[in-house]
Amino acid sequence: MTPFDYLKQTEKRRMQDLFKFLSFPSVSAKSENKKDVAACARWLSDHLNEIGFKSRIMPTGGHPVVYAEYVSDKKEPTALYYGHYDVQPPEPLDLWKTPPFEPEIRKGYIYARGACDDKGQTFAQIKGLQAVLEATGSLPINVKLLIEGEEEAASENLPVFIKKNKKMLKADIAVVSDTAQFSKKLPAVTFGLRGIAFVEVFVYGPNRDVHSGGFGGAIANPINVLCAMVGQLHDKNGKITVPGFYKNVKSLSKWEKQQFKKLPYSEAAYKKSLGIPALHGEKGFTTLERAWARPTLDVNGITGGYQGEGTKTIIPATASCKITMRLVPEMDPKDVCNKIEKYLLKIAPKSVRVKVIKHGGAKAVVVPTEGPWLEAAGRAIKTGFGKAPVFMREGGSIPVVADFKSMLGLDTLLIGLGQPDDNIHSPNERFRVIDFERGCKTAAVLPAELAGVRQ
Amino acid sequence: MTPFDYLKQTEKRRMQDLFKFLSFPSVSAKSENKKDVAACARWLSDHLNEIGFKSRIMPTGGHPVVYAEYVSDKKEPTALYYGHYDVQPPEPLDLWKTPPFEPEIRKGYIYARGACDDKGQTFAQIKGLQAVLEATGSLPINVKLLIEGEEEAASENLPVFIKKNKKMLKADIAVVSDTAQFSKKLPAVTFGLRGIAFVEVFVYGPNRDVHSGGFGGAIANPINVLCAMVGQLHDKNGKITVPGFYKNVKSLSKWEKQQFKKLPYSEAAYKKSLGIPALHGEKGFTTLERAWARPTLDVNGITGGYQGEGTKTIIPATASCKITMRLVPEMDPKDVCNKIEKYLLKIAPKSVRVKVIKHGGAKAVVVPTEGPWLEAAGRAIKTGFGKAPVFMREGGSIPVVADFKSMLGLDTLLIGLGQPDDNIHSPNERFRVIDFERGCKTAAVLPAELAGVRQ
Repeated sequence: MTPFDYLKQTEKRRMQDLFKFLSFPSVSAKSENKKDVAACARWLSDHLNEIGFKSRIMPTGGHPVVYAEYVSDKKEPTALYYGHYDVQPPEPLDLWKTPPFEPEIRKGYIYARGACDDKGQTFAQIKGLQAVLEATGSLPINVKLLIEGEEEAASENLPVFIKKNKKMLKADIAVVSDTAQFSKKLPAVTFGLRGIAFVEVFVYGPNRDVHSGGFGGAIANPINVLCAMVGQLHDKNGKITVPGFYKNVKSLSKWEKQQFKKLPYSEAAYKKSLGIPALHGEKGFTTLERAWARPTLDVNGITGGYQGEGTKTIIPATASCKITMRLVPEMDPKDVCNKIEKYLLKIAPKSVRVKVIKHGGAKAVVVPTEGPWLEAAGRAIKTGFGKAPVFMREGGSIPVVADFKSMLGLDTLLIGLGQPDDNIHSPNERFRVIDFERGCKTAAVLPAELAGVRQ
Repeated sequence: MTPFDYLKQTEKRRMQDLFKFLSFPSVSAKSENKKDVAACARWLSDHLNEIGFKSRIMPTGGHPVVYAEYVSDKKEPTALYYGHYDVQPPEPLDLWKTPPFEPEIRKGYIYARGACDDKGQTFAQIKGLQAVLEATGSLPINVKLLIEGEEEAASENLPVFIKKNKKMLKADIAVVSDTAQFSKKLPAVTFGLRGIAFVEVFVYGPNRDVHSGGFGGAIANPINVLCAMVGQLHDKNGKITVPGFYKNVKSLSKWEKQQFKKLPYSEAAYKKSLGIPALHGEKGFTTLERAWARPTLDVNGITGGYQGEGTKTIIPATASCKITMRLVPEMDPKDVCNKIEKYLLKIAPKSVRVKVIKHGGAKAVVVPTEGPWLEAAGRAIKTGFGKAPVFMREGGSIPVVADFKSMLGLDTLLIGLGQPDDNIHSPNERFRVIDFERGCKTAAVLPAELAGVRQ
């Protein structure tokens, strides 16, 4: 029996296991889901033990890490697989066709929060490894699995965990499936990810909501003020106005720009898939450059005053928003948080109090675009997906990739199994059944390909 | 027995009746409260019938009007009393010390939504009239009571109602207690009110919330766009930038400016009571001028994206806000709504779709500042409160006052019984027990004073 035979025979059972994994509302951002996150970690660790790994739950300052090992032969290479079992908040719930934690297959797609990001992709890697174990009795490489529970909360406690467990995590290469293919027709290896920095901004006005007739015109309105402040963060050319924001930005290399241009990309199709009348961004850059390799500043949420039906004529006591900035290589999240805080406090009028909570974030990464590891990954993808991958960057962030490099000296293979339109972080998140299956196959081939790399 | 004797004897019962009136969650803005609004109207109408009026519930296109009459002597003057039994939404509920629809007295204040605005004040007028009826067997004037259920929803259907019932509503003078005294030490007659115009603004971006890593930088973010648009609505001097906004604005007269200056007003106390670090407003005007006699543009509520704990890295599909503008004499609410819509659509980038819902509003009013009616009101207030009133304007809006003038040819006596710090439209709305009692006394004296006016 080959690993592919095993995968074929266990297709139904594998989907049942994935559905179970997807049914935990492991929302790391919300304290109300703490128990669900813990239950998900417990289930995952038990499952890894059942299928042949030595797994345990390791505490962190926040949600726990699930860590598992399979020691094959110390002379063989060691691959450190990373994934995350936590998910984004599912809101707004009313836009989901079926409940986010009750997985369902419709028209070739698995629908659930986490279906793609990242439970589905992580599970494909696990199930590929299991197939090799079941079919051949062992793995041709040493495998370490680090599956965290805080990726969607900026991996706040993972750097400390890695620092503490450097020896345990020692490896030759890291493998991460938490990105996307270029398109349904084109698998990809991602060589660059943006970083992220997160701040929350609070504007405080009167000590209570007050009547906008009685007080309007005489005191600052925290919503008006917050809007004016946020409105000043971009100029007319789509550049971010925070002083020093672009100081350390590393420009794209000629080779990278060429790679981007080679990709079969249609702005018209992109616009249509999003239903927007026009694209929008920093002057002087293409859409792929803007989305993958330029820094951004987006308000992810804003709230203030009355949000119910009809009107309530008040000046609210407070207004607030959540801002994340995507970072490109050489930008430092702490530095960026400090700069935006300084700027916001500077432009705030004296008639309000402003508080900026700086949550930090993660640096951007660019991994090698050539070498034997990458070639091995390329071959595995070609076997699994039936087509050789292209090279691309991505606009999202996987904080751990930079830490692997700086703390463990590890390069990472970013093997995306999902699609750009899988609605990750959106309602109706999904994962193509065929991508899950091809992902399992790729994962079943990868160990042998990595075993062939002699350093 | 005098009316004052009757008031003294029935103090406890009167407060029980007021508590019953306050316990209806008659929130006109919310369709979920439609039954509560209707139940409140029913109770009020029944109560008016019980105490000697001929009352009935009259339907409108929205919430019903409670209309009651007492015909005394056709040769005597007729006063049209106006009040409203609907209230503002009570949110945010967590800031209330006791539930908004469970009235409670603490330290000399009645706490409840509507305690002051306007159930408490309306009830003081009713109870004053009842005292005269009980003590003397009749009223010295003809009284018509028009108590509506949509004042907090911009009195949308009242103009049509008045137009339809002109004959029924015929009177010599209108009486409204829906404003405030100048301070605890100084009762007032209000001679000017601002108008109001209400719009809702929706900004639509991608057809779903999307990942801010995958798409950030390449498409417009509806929150960023909405903020930038709102931020452009005021200039550095606090002037509203909507073209033509100030075109019809009537400036304050020299006499009005003098009246304002005479009032014992302390900016320091004002700032302290609101807990704000500095005042804020249109350059070139005093605080009282800004709050009472200059137009404003305030965002009363804004919403977009993720508002839960932690972060959710999305670009939301939509963001929206509610804007009300306070108007001064000569400004037309429809005209103002059209102007802001035009301007918002003009400054919106092409990368989003923008919708402005124009709800219209009400004109500002200035009523006569001298004459026998006003003198009669002044004497009643002096008797009820023990001090002669000052003249002032107010920043709030009572849409009906302009309609009374234009449709019925009626001037209005604005006899405020509450205080500026009664938290109307805010959590913990309240009404001083002593103001309620003095208000009842004023209302018990007013009919005799009005009867003395011979036109």
